[in-house]
Amino acid sequence: MMSSETGRIEAFSDGVFSIAATLLVLELKAPAAALPFWQGIAAQWPSYASFLLSFLFIGIMWMNHHRLFTHVQRSDDALMAANLLLLLGVVWIPYPTSLMAQAVATGRIREAAILYNGSYLALGLLFNLLLFTCMKRGLVDREYAGVRHIARSYAVGPLLYLVCLGTTWWSVPLSLAMNGGMAVYFLVSPEKRVKRAGARR
Amino acid sequence: MMSSETGRIEAFSDGVFSIAATLLVLELKAPAAALPFWQGIAAQWPSYASFLLSFLFIGIMWMNHHRLFTHVQRSDDALMAANLLLLLGVVWIPYPTSLMAQAVATGRIREAAILYNGSYLALGLLFNLLLFTCMKRGLVDREYAGVRHIARSYAVGPLLYLVCLGTTWWSVPLSLAMNGGMAVYFLVSPEKRVKRAGARR
Amino acid sequence: MMSSETGRIEAFSDGVFSIAATLLVLELKAPAAALPFWQGIAAQWPSYASFLLSFLFIGIMWMNHHRLFTHVQRSDDALMAANLLLLLGVVWIPYPTSLMAQAVATGRIREAAILYNGSYLALGLLFNLLLFTCMKRGLVDREYAGVRHIARSYAVGPLLYLVCLGTTWWSVPLSLAMNGGMAVYFLVSPEKRVKRAGARR
Amino acid sequence: MMSSETGRIEAFSDGVFSIAATLLVLELKAPAAALPFWQGIAAQWPSYASFLLSFLFIGIMWMNHHRLFTHVQRSDDALMAANLLLLLGVVWIPYPTSLMAQAVATGRIREAAILYNGSYLALGLLFNLLLFTCMKRGLVDREYAGVRHIARSYAVGPLLYLVCLGTTWWSVPLSLAMNGGMAVYFLVSPEKRVKRAGARR
Repeated sequence: MMSSETGRIEAFSDGVFSIAATLLVLELKAPAAALPFWQGIAAQWPSYASFLLSFLFIGIMWMNHHRLFTHVQRSDDALMAANLLLLLGVVWIPYPTSLMAQAVATGRIREAAILYNGSYLALGLLFNLLLFTCMKRGLVDREYAGVRHIARSYAVGPLLYLVCLGTTWWSVPLSLAMNGGMAVYFLVSPEKRVKRAGARR
Repeated sequence: MMSSETGRIEAFSDGVFSIAATLLVLELKAPAAALPFWQGIAAQWPSYASFLLSFLFIGIMWMNHHRLFTHVQRSDDALMAANLLLLLGVVWIPYPTSLMAQAVATGRIREAAILYNGSYLALGLLFNLLLFTCMKRGLVDREYAGVRHIARSYAVGPLLYLVCLGTTWWSVPLSLAMNGGMAVYFLVSPEKRVKRAGARR
Repeated sequence: MMSSETGRIEAFSDGVFSIAATLLVLELKAPAAALPFWQGIAAQWPSYASFLLSFLFIGIMWMNHHRLFTHVQRSDDALMAANLLLLLGVVWIPYPTSLMAQAVATGRIREAAILYNGSYLALGLLFNLLLFTCMKRGLVDREYAGVRHIARSYAVGPLLYLVCLGTTWWSVPLSLAMNGGMAVYFLVSPEKRVKRAGARR
Repeated sequence: MMSSETGRIEAFSDGVFSIAATLLVLELKAPAAALPFWQGIAAQWPSYASFLLSFLFIGIMWMNHHRLFTHVQRSDDALMAANLLLLLGVVWIPYPTSLMAQAVATGRIREAAILYNGSYLALGLLFNLLLFTCMKRGLVDREYAGVRHIARSYAVGPLLYLVCLGTTWWSVPLSLAMNGGMAVYFLVSPEKRVKRAGARR
């Protein structure tokens, strides 16, 4: 049992990531009947923005998970437990997302942004716990450039979310804009970061 | 990291396609208690029609996705990002579908049809972005007849949805009938189109 | 494109079957607050019965699907289209199931049972369409005993549902009891039927 | 048909486990608008606690399922039927979980805890039915230390849930604390238990 292929862990994880990403659409409500259609659609922008942001974050986390597991040669129970805690965080995401979507209407946008960024901060830490478990137990080659590169990028994630979290006390719109910027950066930049890592090998 | 097998991208994509297709059923509501049962069922025809149409479109898109990935030999981060944007569009589909289902009752059928066809138009463009990414980065053999055939069929999709979208300003029922015709055509015709492509190889 | 491995069709189908089966739980409502807890639970028996029945039927259909695909050596677009229509029927199932669950409360149990058995009748026919497509196009070996056995068992399904459907006009409780008997029979008997088929090989 | 690879059973099971685990998030409701945000969040602790507990239990059951199937070399229809009954129990879990989440508000916490622990007791028995089916039919090597170890750990599960169930008549909070302790124990301890089993081989 100490050594088994990682395929089924990835299948279970892929299931959780893809379902959590898809369930986000259930939070999108029909526009208010009292408003003209397009005005009602426009009034729902916070729902669409938080849907978009969380979908991209879940997708990016899936990419990061995928990237780590290309280096994991075998699995053990500690890895399964650490992975399970990470997936717990992924499954949780639709909840702060729906509170963000309602936040403009309820006037509690700062509180919702704190919970939202706090949730992603926790997820960032859980990613580091997963990587630490892999390294500690020798499930990945910690001297390999690809793994060292992943370790650096995983370390940056929680710091960025911590900055966004702190910014909510100063300016919520700026904090959200920073969230959006992070999503775009993570989506378009990994290639470049990987190339640099490749050059170091 | 530059090269990795495409298996897990397909697994994640399959998850998103199959969940989005299955969630459509959650939009089907019980018939109104005030009406006789079969009359209540009949009154819900817009829900059933949009359920049927979107299920077929998601299934056809899955087939197109599957067809492309049989030619993709390796994956990189740009492909993952383009694929993620496509899946964002797929996850979005149940939302315009539910607005279409309610459109007859709310009397906003033109607006809903515009949003519906506009969403599929965007998805058609995202399919072309995915294919363009694959070609640009050499992940598929662009000279291969099968790939050239996919490129032609992907180019046609957005044009057809654009025509349907334009038709909504003239006649919404005709536009919806054209949507239905497209679903039937895509479902029964690919074989013939593939045969022609095979002959050209 | 004419020949590709069936792995991804099975993955997509597995996704749809497992999601449709799992979504059934969303129809289970909390017991009425006005009643004592266990009395409220007991009053919900139609929900539990239809949940149980539909879960078993979806599971059995998945087993039948699995059994057929062990014999399908390659795939083509016609198979994909026939499979998509079958999955459309699977995704539909939670809807008649939820109407059955509410039927005792709304007093429309005959109508709901007609829709329920009619839906499974349609699914049984779609299974035969899938098998016919495989045979017609030479995707399975029609002379092989295992395939001939599947063909016989697929032919029986629609007949059984037709009998249940007809019985609803005479006695709805008997019809539902027959549904339950079918689920138990299909669940415990395949082994024996397979053994007989094996003996004929 | 008597012998086929277990891959697709695992894929279907992984789908059901991951969807059941992810659907739990749909039970989390927005905090009451009448309360200050964080107070409203705090008032929802029973929802979060039952979400956390059920997610961990489903994850641990998935690990146990995974562990057994690493030893299952082939599949037959009896295994499929026993596995289907187990998955029925897994799909059921979100329902007693949502009743637990509402139990503090409705003042029916003992009844909900009985249903909750009773459901897990039934699941523990279904795990033993699955293992018994595998052993009886020679699908696993019953003399192998890994399998003997699984048999012992499966036998313990129902006993622990039975104790929790009995404890609800004496003290519901203690019963729930024992549930939490079980989740933590199962999550952190398998490694040690496996090592001991490995030593006995």
